[in-house]
Amino acid sequence: MNISNFNLEEKFAKIHEYWHPYIVGELNENYVKLAKLKGELVWHSHEEEDEMFVVVSGTLMMDFRDGKTTQTKPGEILIVPKKVEHRPWTNKGEEVRVMLIEPKSTKHTGEVKVAQTVEVLEWI
Amino acid sequence: MNISNFNLEEKFAKIHEYWHPYIVGELNENYVKLAKLKGELVWHSHEEEDEMFVVVSGTLMMDFRDGKTTQTKPGEILIVPKKVEHRPWTNKGEEVRVMLIEPKSTKHTGEVKVAQTVEVLEWI
Repeated sequence: MNISNFNLEEKFAKIHEYWHPYIVGELNENYVKLAKLKGELVWHSHEEEDEMFVVVSGTLMMDFRDGKTTQTKPGEILIVPKKVEHRPWTNKGEEVRVMLIEPKSTKHTGEVKVAQTVEVLEWI
Repeated sequence: MNISNFNLEEKFAKIHEYWHPYIVGELNENYVKLAKLKGELVWHSHEEEDEMFVVVSGTLMMDFRDGKTTQTKPGEILIVPKKVEHRPWTNKGEEVRVMLIEPKSTKHTGEVKVAQTVEVLEWI
């Protein structure tokens, strides 16, 4: 593994789909991923993996099954523990950019498969 | 573990020392830490742990033993692989704020003990 020093905006410029995470780094057994979000994703959970969202632009909305919804803005962090069902979405028409840190084993829609599910993640 | 949603500026406001990392989150076997940096730290490496630096403000300077120095600015990420000796420093008088993501086992000055070494990390 090499020393890695990269700029988030340059990486985001390579992403042209929503809800499609790309790998930009690795550390230990985790990947660092970037994704652009618009609209909503399916309800899902990760059996074994906690998931960290670092919001780079926009407001990340996250629904939970207890009826609560969190808002996470640039400069804020959301950590969703393993097994906790969640549904990310964005306010109407808003593009949200996030950095994700999570174990390499994490599937972005958990065990649920939908049109947005990406089976094999690529590096950018 | 609970859902965690927090603001970096509010956490940084609680930090009054340089080179003293505080824990603000955990995911899987990693801690998320914040630190304010000014001046320089000792050369060190981490035998088993890759280390990720997310620069929040200022420019993080990092020396490596091959003579190279990286500069990492806000919106940029530096990942230092395990076993790679490194020395973080800041430009004269500049305070740099970083978020670190690294395994819980990571000691911030590696196996080197100096005045800045913090033995027991605290949550803020």
